[in-house]
Amino acid sequence: MADPLRIVLVAPRNPLNIGAAARAMSNFGFNQMRLVNPYEVAFKEARSAVHSQYILENAEVFPTIAESVADCSLVAGTTAAARRDLHVPLYRLEPAGELLRGHLVAGKPAALLFGSEKFGLSNEDMSHCHWLLRIPSREEHGSMNLGQAVAICLYELRRDADAAAHRFEPAPTVSAEDLERITSLLLDLLNRSGYVHATTTESTELKVRRLVRRLGLPAADTDTWLGIFRQILWKIGKTPTP
Amino acid sequence: MADPLRIVLVAPRNPLNIGAAARAMSNFGFNQMRLVNPYEVAFKEARSAVHSQYILENAEVFPTIAESVADCSLVAGTTAAARRDLHVPLYRLEPAGELLRGHLVAGKPAALLFGSEKFGLSNEDMSHCHWLLRIPSREEHGSMNLGQAVAICLYELRRDADAAAHRFEPAPTVSAEDLERITSLLLDLLNRSGYVHATTTESTELKVRRLVRRLGLPAADTDTWLGIFRQILWKIGKTPTP
Repeated sequence: MADPLRIVLVAPRNPLNIGAAARAMSNFGFNQMRLVNPYEVAFKEARSAVHSQYILENAEVFPTIAESVADCSLVAGTTAAARRDLHVPLYRLEPAGELLRGHLVAGKPAALLFGSEKFGLSNEDMSHCHWLLRIPSREEHGSMNLGQAVAICLYELRRDADAAAHRFEPAPTVSAEDLERITSLLLDLLNRSGYVHATTTESTELKVRRLVRRLGLPAADTDTWLGIFRQILWKIGKTPTP
Repeated sequence: MADPLRIVLVAPRNPLNIGAAARAMSNFGFNQMRLVNPYEVAFKEARSAVHSQYILENAEVFPTIAESVADCSLVAGTTAAARRDLHVPLYRLEPAGELLRGHLVAGKPAALLFGSEKFGLSNEDMSHCHWLLRIPSREEHGSMNLGQAVAICLYELRRDADAAAHRFEPAPTVSAEDLERITSLLLDLLNRSGYVHATTTESTELKVRRLVRRLGLPAADTDTWLGIFRQILWKIGKTPTP
């Protein structure tokens, strides 16, 4: 099945941006690029770039927005700010991504429009859109770089909120038995190196036991730590006792 | 309070990428850029670019990663793939963003490391990291563009999952009274224009009533539609009846 999402660049001027948009599409597994009235030289130059060439080779060029989105049952536009009466709903990217995903999972074609680097989408361009979305960047800064805006939108579409659920895959932690072996060795080491005073041996033992347990030692590192302490003990054993 | 997140570019080579990273930082309201061993010419060139100059002017340069992250209590690295034994936990960006946000809200300094365009972070670079994150792009494609990777990570940090909750701010829909006014006018129009046959008037009325209710008309558009229908009715009244 052809990818139902069309990425439509309206009047792009900079070959680097066209190439960056194509690269982001390839990164996130989208391949339907459409260009409306692109600056001819820029498009040619972008096509000669190495990255994501298959996307640019298959990119379709249209003279008007209406033709570029004719087969789409949802047309969403991107805009930098709520700076004028937009006439259509404006969503932040997070919920807009959800709306788009909902449309696309059914295999229904949708278009996502990005305006030119300099002016964004015009009011006339926006009149083709069912709704608009805004990447939640600082309003003071104004518009984003085109290639970055495309990358962020596509990331949001591929984002997997559930990935956050299994976020911690904690390495298996060390067993109590191994923790105690490490504790004894370390205590031995502290005794032999003169860190522990005879009068405080007992409280030191508790302190060290807790210290070791607060480390959050991964099980896989146990042998390494045991080896380190044994080696140091061996070396200390070699030194003449005073 | 100074921004607790340091964006650390390790050995960047391309001035456009340094500039793009700075622009993304400005877009999302981060301002602490650090560069480890940047290609001198690239850094100078990036500084002369127009965008986000205040970030580049304040960017600090360090000879080593250790020095660049010395004041950070969390160091996270970015990597393109799980292609080798990474020795530290690797998270997708979604949960990694949550971990980073959790650290930053407390005002605790953290560093987010990006490797050079060509090689990414080396094993030695990664050994300074508490954990690594990966942007969930297609593995087949390999690495992402540096400026786009920075933009996506910062977007994830500024992302507001709750914005998805109030996603629909549906325009107030038209009242039943106005819907019925529109229905009558439209029916009148259909009658006068010969659309409705005398034998099917009743079923047509039901059809049209349902048709109008399925439109999801915004209340604000009611008067426009009423005006349109009235005008057409007026025009039809002007035409001689056959």
